[in-house]
Amino acid sequence: MKKLLIASLLTIAMAGAAQAGSTADTAHPGNSSQTVLPAHSLGSFAGPDAWFTGEVKVDMLFNKTANLQASGASVTFQPGARTAWHLHPAGQTLIVTAGKGLTGYEGGKTVELNPGDVVQCPAGVRHWHGASPDSAMTHIAITGYDADGQNVEWFEKVSDAEYLGQGTSAKP
Amino acid sequence: MKKLLIASLLTIAMAGAAQAGSTADTAHPGNSSQTVLPAHSLGSFAGPDAWFTGEVKVDMLFNKTANLQASGASVTFQPGARTAWHLHPAGQTLIVTAGKGLTGYEGGKTVELNPGDVVQCPAGVRHWHGASPDSAMTHIAITGYDADGQNVEWFEKVSDAEYLGQGTSAKP
Repeated sequence: MKKLLIASLLTIAMAGAAQAGSTADTAHPGNSSQTVLPAHSLGSFAGPDAWFTGEVKVDMLFNKTANLQASGASVTFQPGARTAWHLHPAGQTLIVTAGKGLTGYEGGKTVELNPGDVVQCPAGVRHWHGASPDSAMTHIAITGYDADGQNVEWFEKVSDAEYLGQGTSAKP
Repeated sequence: MKKLLIASLLTIAMAGAAQAGSTADTAHPGNSSQTVLPAHSLGSFAGPDAWFTGEVKVDMLFNKTANLQASGASVTFQPGARTAWHLHPAGQTLIVTAGKGLTGYEGGKTVELNPGDVVQCPAGVRHWHGASPDSAMTHIAITGYDADGQNVEWFEKVSDAEYLGQGTSAKP
């Protein structure tokens, strides 16, 4: 219950990030104008200890819109850092942009990630993702929202054994 | 009519690109497994002369799925290269990943793009995007699909005057 509450608060905080610095043409409001969000204009935050192991930085890229029911963020994990186990009720797509990483999902094996790799996690599948033990990793995360406006549900931390791929990832 | 036909053919070709090299766990098919698409596994193609000015390379990242009704591609424009005028019936989000670029939309001014900038183009808005005159530019494009499976409609080339931002972009 506490985890769900924290998740909800973060979702609200992320959705509410001001789109400061927009260069939208104010003479053409609404759906008739293209918007350019300058780099870093939506802010960034450290990945909370409750949901991450190690040092993680989240740079928000875009919030969901009428056209795309998904938000975007660039996430950098320092060596050894990773998410806790979690699922996305409307799925998630990751695009690795730098470094070397690892990912796993419930019942699957730990897989190495390199720049240009794309991870497609369907709705409801428990997974985790992060840096490799000796290299940082950055990915863009495109995370869908369900009809209730939820985009993530958090579970336990990923153990060292699960992270290092010692056998198939255990049920969390 | 000819342009629409070509656009349809490309859409089909892109949607049909084989997801070769997937490391999905075949013991968990369907929606219970996470898929990792290795870099370059969906192939790349040169931006066709009919829709682009200059040298453009499109690296497909992911096709639309049940969870995300949008495809992803990394697109690199050599200096001076740009799209023709076009619109996306379900909108488009661009994330600039390298270099320096330019974008414009119908009735709006030409805006400079730098790494980390995000462009949000609503459904039906005519726009264009590309490199700056003296620097290449790479962006990730996340392009939505409408209910008919269409994701783009092409129009005229962007003139040098429009590209260089000499006044407000003209109606195409």
